[in-house]
Amino acid sequence: MRLVGFAVMSLDGCLTRHQDPGTSFASPEDHRFFRAALHAFDSVLVGRKTYEASRASPLWSRPDARLRCVLTSTPEDYAEITRAGELEFHNTTVPEAVANLEARGRENCAVLGGARVFTDACSANLLDELWVTLEPLAFGQGERMFEGRVDFRFALSSAETLSKDTLLLKYRRLVA
Amino acid sequence: MRLVGFAVMSLDGCLTRHQDPGTSFASPEDHRFFRAALHAFDSVLVGRKTYEASRASPLWSRPDARLRCVLTSTPEDYAEITRAGELEFHNTTVPEAVANLEARGRENCAVLGGARVFTDACSANLLDELWVTLEPLAFGQGERMFEGRVDFRFALSSAETLSKDTLLLKYRRLVA
Repeated sequence: MRLVGFAVMSLDGCLTRHQDPGTSFASPEDHRFFRAALHAFDSVLVGRKTYEASRASPLWSRPDARLRCVLTSTPEDYAEITRAGELEFHNTTVPEAVANLEARGRENCAVLGGARVFTDACSANLLDELWVTLEPLAFGQGERMFEGRVDFRFALSSAETLSKDTLLLKYRRLVA
Repeated sequence: MRLVGFAVMSLDGCLTRHQDPGTSFASPEDHRFFRAALHAFDSVLVGRKTYEASRASPLWSRPDARLRCVLTSTPEDYAEITRAGELEFHNTTVPEAVANLEARGRENCAVLGGARVFTDACSANLLDELWVTLEPLAFGQGERMFEGRVDFRFALSSAETLSKDTLLLKYRRLVA
């Protein structure tokens, strides 16, 4: 299965503006790109906090065949909104979640973060690509892409502009 | 006077690899670009820690007309290596240092960081441009570009490749 990480980031590497959850700082062009890009994925993997921050998004409520898997230590809290095969909550590791998606025939998974999920997916050598939208902003403080000390290496696949100030950079993960 | 900030950064916004001081993680292409780009600047502004981390660089010892100003609370510690007009150590704020360079006829200043100097220069609306080299690496932990909560906005001037994996992104600061 192919895993692609999506992140929208300030110029100084913040995935949130200060302590504000979510990506409301992102440009309309990034939102548009993200919505369109997701169509190519048959599954979504996300951590609980990132899910919560985007809970109002139609991404989670749209009734389609995309399997959206939220990782949480308390899936029972979400029993009422669980829709099997569409929106599921699992208390598993990232590798277990990926194995589960793969066993259920999924081939393209969009990994939406946050840092813990990105770090675990990279550490387990499961993340194949990272698509980073770079906004021309600086926040100083905010969530970061990875947790703890890591040493990951990538290869640049493409760089394009989503608007005159917003870049979309696609990287492939290199595993030594 | 025109101030241009230079930073080489990992994909996840680290200016150092973990706690290693300096920019030894940067690609040869970035080192080459940086050396060549500096020729266009008649002055350099840098914080003490960033200076210390690059102390072996010929940038500091080369006897030329470039005025290199290191900000430190203890300039007396550097009395022996001070070369007036070439390598000076000052216990001043960033705005005072910039005013001093300007009063001495300097027109183009390269600001090399670290975070405190970048933040102060931006907060005082003195930084005109930010040139960021983006390396295809992730470190999780390291020095960041800015300190504290900030809200700076830029406009993308250009994006080019220094090598197949390393990008050079030039931004202009937008002041509201």
